[in-house]
Amino acid sequence: MKENTPIAALGYANIDLERKRRTGYAEVIFCLGKTPEQVAGIMQKMAETERLIIGTKASVEQYEAVRSGLSSAGLDADGLSLTYYADAKMIILSETLRPAERKGSVAVVSGGTADIPIAEEAALTADAYGFEALRVYDVGVAGLHRLLERIEKIRSADVVVAVAGMEGALASVVAGLVSVPVIAVPTSVGYGASFEGMTALLSMLNSCSLGVAVMNIDNGFGAGHLAAMIADKGK
Amino acid sequence: MKENTPIAALGYANIDLERKRRTGYAEVIFCLGKTPEQVAGIMQKMAETERLIIGTKASVEQYEAVRSGLSSAGLDADGLSLTYYADAKMIILSETLRPAERKGSVAVVSGGTADIPIAEEAALTADAYGFEALRVYDVGVAGLHRLLERIEKIRSADVVVAVAGMEGALASVVAGLVSVPVIAVPTSVGYGASFEGMTALLSMLNSCSLGVAVMNIDNGFGAGHLAAMIADKGK
Amino acid sequence: MKENTPIAALGYANIDLERKRRTGYAEVIFCLGKTPEQVAGIMQKMAETERLIIGTKASVEQYEAVRSGLSSAGLDADGLSLTYYADAKMIILSETLRPAERKGSVAVVSGGTADIPIAEEAALTADAYGFEALRVYDVGVAGLHRLLERIEKIRSADVVVAVAGMEGALASVVAGLVSVPVIAVPTSVGYGASFEGMTALLSMLNSCSLGVAVMNIDNGFGAGHLAAMIADKGK
Amino acid sequence: MKENTPIAALGYANIDLERKRRTGYAEVIFCLGKTPEQVAGIMQKMAETERLIIGTKASVEQYEAVRSGLSSAGLDADGLSLTYYADAKMIILSETLRPAERKGSVAVVSGGTADIPIAEEAALTADAYGFEALRVYDVGVAGLHRLLERIEKIRSADVVVAVAGMEGALASVVAGLVSVPVIAVPTSVGYGASFEGMTALLSMLNSCSLGVAVMNIDNGFGAGHLAAMIADKGK
Amino acid sequence: MKENTPIAALGYANIDLERKRRTGYAEVIFCLGKTPEQVAGIMQKMAETERLIIGTKASVEQYEAVRSGLSSAGLDADGLSLTYYADAKMIILSETLRPAERKGSVAVVSGGTADIPIAEEAALTADAYGFEALRVYDVGVAGLHRLLERIEKIRSADVVVAVAGMEGALASVVAGLVSVPVIAVPTSVGYGASFEGMTALLSMLNSCSLGVAVMNIDNGFGAGHLAAMIADKGK
Amino acid sequence: MKENTPIAALGYANIDLERKRRTGYAEVIFCLGKTPEQVAGIMQKMAETERLIIGTKASVEQYEAVRSGLSSAGLDADGLSLTYYADAKMIILSETLRPAERKGSVAVVSGGTADIPIAEEAALTADAYGFEALRVYDVGVAGLHRLLERIEKIRSADVVVAVAGMEGALASVVAGLVSVPVIAVPTSVGYGASFEGMTALLSMLNSCSLGVAVMNIDNGFGAGHLAAMIADKGK
Amino acid sequence: MKENTPIAALGYANIDLERKRRTGYAEVIFCLGKTPEQVAGIMQKMAETERLIIGTKASVEQYEAVRSGLSSAGLDADGLSLTYYADAKMIILSETLRPAERKGSVAVVSGGTADIPIAEEAALTADAYGFEALRVYDVGVAGLHRLLERIEKIRSADVVVAVAGMEGALASVVAGLVSVPVIAVPTSVGYGASFEGMTALLSMLNSCSLGVAVMNIDNGFGAGHLAAMIADKGK
Amino acid sequence: MKENTPIAALGYANIDLERKRRTGYAEVIFCLGKTPEQVAGIMQKMAETERLIIGTKASVEQYEAVRSGLSSAGLDADGLSLTYYADAKMIILSETLRPAERKGSVAVVSGGTADIPIAEEAALTADAYGFEALRVYDVGVAGLHRLLERIEKIRSADVVVAVAGMEGALASVVAGLVSVPVIAVPTSVGYGASFEGMTALLSMLNSCSLGVAVMNIDNGFGAGHLAAMIADKGK
Repeated sequence: MKENTPIAALGYANIDLERKRRTGYAEVIFCLGKTPEQVAGIMQKMAETERLIIGTKASVEQYEAVRSGLSSAGLDADGLSLTYYADAKMIILSETLRPAERKGSVAVVSGGTADIPIAEEAALTADAYGFEALRVYDVGVAGLHRLLERIEKIRSADVVVAVAGMEGALASVVAGLVSVPVIAVPTSVGYGASFEGMTALLSMLNSCSLGVAVMNIDNGFGAGHLAAMIADKGK
Repeated sequence: MKENTPIAALGYANIDLERKRRTGYAEVIFCLGKTPEQVAGIMQKMAETERLIIGTKASVEQYEAVRSGLSSAGLDADGLSLTYYADAKMIILSETLRPAERKGSVAVVSGGTADIPIAEEAALTADAYGFEALRVYDVGVAGLHRLLERIEKIRSADVVVAVAGMEGALASVVAGLVSVPVIAVPTSVGYGASFEGMTALLSMLNSCSLGVAVMNIDNGFGAGHLAAMIADKGK
Repeated sequence: MKENTPIAALGYANIDLERKRRTGYAEVIFCLGKTPEQVAGIMQKMAETERLIIGTKASVEQYEAVRSGLSSAGLDADGLSLTYYADAKMIILSETLRPAERKGSVAVVSGGTADIPIAEEAALTADAYGFEALRVYDVGVAGLHRLLERIEKIRSADVVVAVAGMEGALASVVAGLVSVPVIAVPTSVGYGASFEGMTALLSMLNSCSLGVAVMNIDNGFGAGHLAAMIADKGK
Repeated sequence: MKENTPIAALGYANIDLERKRRTGYAEVIFCLGKTPEQVAGIMQKMAETERLIIGTKASVEQYEAVRSGLSSAGLDADGLSLTYYADAKMIILSETLRPAERKGSVAVVSGGTADIPIAEEAALTADAYGFEALRVYDVGVAGLHRLLERIEKIRSADVVVAVAGMEGALASVVAGLVSVPVIAVPTSVGYGASFEGMTALLSMLNSCSLGVAVMNIDNGFGAGHLAAMIADKGK
Repeated sequence: MKENTPIAALGYANIDLERKRRTGYAEVIFCLGKTPEQVAGIMQKMAETERLIIGTKASVEQYEAVRSGLSSAGLDADGLSLTYYADAKMIILSETLRPAERKGSVAVVSGGTADIPIAEEAALTADAYGFEALRVYDVGVAGLHRLLERIEKIRSADVVVAVAGMEGALASVVAGLVSVPVIAVPTSVGYGASFEGMTALLSMLNSCSLGVAVMNIDNGFGAGHLAAMIADKGK
Repeated sequence: MKENTPIAALGYANIDLERKRRTGYAEVIFCLGKTPEQVAGIMQKMAETERLIIGTKASVEQYEAVRSGLSSAGLDADGLSLTYYADAKMIILSETLRPAERKGSVAVVSGGTADIPIAEEAALTADAYGFEALRVYDVGVAGLHRLLERIEKIRSADVVVAVAGMEGALASVVAGLVSVPVIAVPTSVGYGASFEGMTALLSMLNSCSLGVAVMNIDNGFGAGHLAAMIADKGK
Repeated sequence: MKENTPIAALGYANIDLERKRRTGYAEVIFCLGKTPEQVAGIMQKMAETERLIIGTKASVEQYEAVRSGLSSAGLDADGLSLTYYADAKMIILSETLRPAERKGSVAVVSGGTADIPIAEEAALTADAYGFEALRVYDVGVAGLHRLLERIEKIRSADVVVAVAGMEGALASVVAGLVSVPVIAVPTSVGYGASFEGMTALLSMLNSCSLGVAVMNIDNGFGAGHLAAMIADKGK
Repeated sequence: MKENTPIAALGYANIDLERKRRTGYAEVIFCLGKTPEQVAGIMQKMAETERLIIGTKASVEQYEAVRSGLSSAGLDADGLSLTYYADAKMIILSETLRPAERKGSVAVVSGGTADIPIAEEAALTADAYGFEALRVYDVGVAGLHRLLERIEKIRSADVVVAVAGMEGALASVVAGLVSVPVIAVPTSVGYGASFEGMTALLSMLNSCSLGVAVMNIDNGFGAGHLAAMIADKGK
């Protein structure tokens, strides 16, 4: 490997240090299937140059390994904080005080209480990237008025993330009511013929409303990331 | 086979002549995969004793074979008429003038224009059994106000048949708005990941609204039949 | 959110307080994927106004959280009792003494011993809503005479719930023998190519008998609920 | 290839001339995907040594090519006849007059009229191998009495072939009523979620009755062949 | 329920006491999904009249419940013994000394070592019914000579049970080499695209050899049972 | 239905006339499954108020019916033109001379020549909505340099639509190279295990690159529409 | 696009002219889904520099367009010939007289007569690349001796291509008998649960023999290409 | 079984002792589903004659049973060592000091950190067979430059093994850049619609690049084995 490559090689991982320059966003750590040591090693390496690092689908063991690997004192001195969000299974290292001003807003709409962990993945991500996350939870289509009452709040956002399991009808209904892009996230919430999210996924792909694009099952983070890209007018 | 059996044996078919006594409804002819001659033979045999005969998924060739097999003069004399509904692919032999009084009503709600043939299967069936069919078509959830404006009409029915392809969200939305049973019929309308109706089927099975039961893909007739059974208060 | 909305907002849940007025039945708590605290919080809120609350797919931990959250003395004073049905995984809060008179009857027919938990979901639900549940269990089609001997009991009901795993043939056979609607519930009982209930589900959707509609795999509660809607002649 | 090999090499086919010695039955020609010329060539070669040749899933074009390739006069002289069964899509070359005495009997039971072509595949095969085929058609479980009335005829056979599409419940019901092996053949009859026979196939594999084994979808011939092997007491 | 019904009703189970008269074999207990108490209760009831009782897919806990429920002294007095086969997960209650004479033989052929538990299900069943089980294990097609060397032993049987996971090719190869029926049992042995036995199942259903019928995945018992029915010449 | 409803009811269709106000875009006609007469009727009705109308998945017969229904002279007088794009199967009615100024740009990148019809759906749609469509076709990943050479052109767009069949890897590779959202469209191009686009669909949903959201198989129009929504900075 | 790029841009196609340098083989034309004009245009362009061009999955119409586009006289003068192989659906432009010397050999083994078109794809490809194609057809495992008799011929090759539909067992059996790599090609030959080749595909992926890798369904060309790469010792 | 058979029969296993002669490689122990005792027994038996034995998908319990069964002293005396690779789940018994000279090289390329265990299966296998394993890990296509920088190392190998989960695009991209065969191994890394590796599997089967053949999901060992066969020029 050449000397000046923008890759940090750890043996088990090659961190893509120039991704931010290329795509506008630093690499993100997908923690599923990595050992706690690997996650910690990667995050430590990235922390040398980055001021916002996100780990997704992370276990508390992985978080603790990261916590141990980073000096609290050092983080404080750098004006950084490290947090684990148990629901969303995310590790976020970010600036302690982020500027009050928001670059825009992302509405995160979810069908049921059990969808909240995935919805939070999206909301926390949008928040970390500097957008206001407008949370509108438990507004499934079985009680349409719950959604209709909050539709103005949803319409005020630059982009909508619609999170739902079971039959995933929320995405179609929301997209028919707003004039901004809708990022649909099927969740694995349900049982029997929900086939761990496949039904919601297929349903969202076949939305009869326009303006809907779909993420992988339970990929709340990806939706938050894409929503931020879309909301970011000044790119 | 014994003498007095309530079966009319035609070699290729054993018509279940006592089904009406047993289940309240005469046997129905599922025409798919039968030759025109077989359909005509079965209908002719049934016409000896029945005054309402329904053939489903019927081709125009099958209808013409039936037409040839039954004497028009004879039908007239009996006060019967034979009709082919090309959209719904149904052959219906019924009394020429049915009594004006209806036993109840069935709302048939459909998502899009392309779902109409299946919706008509349900509506014509309910009608043939003596119920008023309240047709509410092309009210897919992409434009919710189309549905909401007609919700009182739907609510006035004894039972609702919800017909939709693509993501099939209509069933969940309707069921959340009414207090009667909803019979959901997925259609094969759509393309790509609609998988010829499987997506709508799975979506309806996972409805987050209560009071929804599901029929096979494109089984409008079965839904109309079941709706009539449910609406028939005096059974 | 407006002041007078018929929603009780708990942050993680928006309880649809006007569902009873709209659909005739109060909201039901689908417990799978909720924390014990969330279940308890929702039930407590609903208990302020409702006298019949059902939690489905509930764990004993969720039940205990509910139990702790509700004062036994208070329940007694209100003439209410709270019960956990371990087999059916249901939490039911209902009036201590329900009126002897029944609004109608629901036959719950099941294929094998292992299907009983799902059958009980349906039977307990019908019972809670004020209908007589006629239990006819372990009458799978491998020994047809077991079913035939009890057919008169089944025929006496206003509606039938047919619960079966494996090949799910019970629904077709029962529907051919009765004149009332049959709500079919596939169960995940079986192994190998039963694919956790998918085979029974597909089988029931393709029933050669008329009058059958299908619920999601293992959705005994939903079947009981719909059966009650159908049996409720006085709606 | 060695001189004395028991293979007749035609370039496009290697006819397994010793299969009869090895397995008790001569090779059978699966015609699907072969050109008419190939079918004719193979049959002509086999006719040099065999007195019973079966072609399955054969088109009328393939039959005509065979017909042209074999001298009628020659067949007569040999006491052989060649017949095409359009329904069953079979070409059978066999002795003109087969002995009246049968080696046993095979009951072929089918669900509906549209299943007859596949049922006939089985019945004609059993017949060609010297067994009596007891045809019991159109006895689907929607009208159980049609089946129960004929159960003694079915019970009199050495083995049963049960042919059904849609939900395929016939196999389970029949197997619960007889004491001989049941060979189940799912057919592609049905629509929507029958998935061209997959539902009937899965259903039969999960039969709650004992004594059922399953063939490929629409494989009536294979069932007739296996039934003959089982019925053949004197092997 | 009538007085003289041939059903033993236990509440959770209706034991089909006349099945032996009807199908030649007593009911068998499918233990999966039943509580230990239910299994013990059913077996105790059956033990009042039967001298051969089989429980399949049984856990050791279920066995221990049965053991406790049946008096060892009583069994001895009756000349019966109760055994648990851990590999095959079977509970068998049978006569202590079975007659040496066998009614015929069943070859049980298996692909790999990991398939043995399912193969043993079949072999123990055939044995319990009074047939000689010829075990030919670990003869997968990757080393064909292992199979070819033992082919005469296999050919000596009245029927063959072929047990294999992974690609399930064993069934086709064996069936091409013998002149008796082959009952194929796919197993869930494998990983990745074996999809827990579905690949072996599909493979066996599409066998290019004649004389193969297929059981559900891992259904060794069912294969043994059917093999006994076929091998039983004197039925 | 009320007087002032923003719906044009044609019996077979309810045109959602206020969709533009609500979502920013007028209703679009999904032509698949509609008769030519229905398509023409809907377009004629819409042409009374709209100056941009799009019909997708349209046949030439449907186009001709539309052509007949609209007076050419009238269109000219209104400064409108009607065009059929055979590849993309689109009917577009739009202003004859659209303003030269573009609101932004959409890169449409496709894998192979056979993907072009779907890519054109996206490009023509973006163009009709007033965006510059940057076409970069036949740059599949088998020859990476074809893509890399044009990457600057792609990077210049406000949003990318990536169209590919077979394994659909193009979406992941492109998304790793740009800093704008990527709308991925799987196509049904391929054979065998491409399963008519399902493989490309699944592949795109599992993209290891961030910033990718997915449309239904062959839904080029939907992608173009969503891309326009995203690119429209001034919304 | 830059001046000196090794791409020939035709608008609808970008021919990768440097692929030969990069991968050792010139680009191949996958004809499915391309118009005859596109195929002809691409081939004409490539013929300017290449002396071996292959078109796969080609229709006779595509061939005729190519034929028209290339001057026969010109081809002769260049010592090239153009041939269409109807069975294999291949268009091959190659040197009229290829050198007698072969670089190695590829055995192409197929299960049945209907698999020959795909087997020929592989054989013709190996031949075109300068290897001897050893054809061993119709040696399916139902008659193992057909295969065993020819095993020495197969063993003499540098690599084996195993082509089979139905249950695809041929690949496993062959791989257990040879010491060279086996490229397995599932074909869509079969019916019912062969699911158009998926069963053979899954079977081959789960081969219990070592040394087997799998191609897409019906991808005979790809197998021939890869086999040539493997056989090419001097690379 | 005959005396001189090249099979070591252990009851539960028949070790194929002549496989090395027949296929060039000794039998390998697939440990999944075997008891520790069975694994130990088989390895002990093989150790009598072999100097390289590989166990795959092995647990640490199985390794410990093998360790106990083999005398360390004995191994040392024989110049053998036994190692367990926890990541790759492999047990390898091999010569303590292998010759420094390599027969060739195999590049093992992997997409992400979580794919390493499967990649190591391939690399360790190639290494054990005497080839140099060139490990190029964590070079997924989301950051293409990571792969491009190392492409010369990959190109230097005799064959490439490409290991990737999620969308599996790595195989297509690599194969477009090299001139040697690519063995693609899909892994079960991913979540949601990765369906435990099925998406990567399907993606690799549909590669738009030539020269790719595919192994079962997670079958790193099989890929390493096949790669060694291909790289072994002197066979």
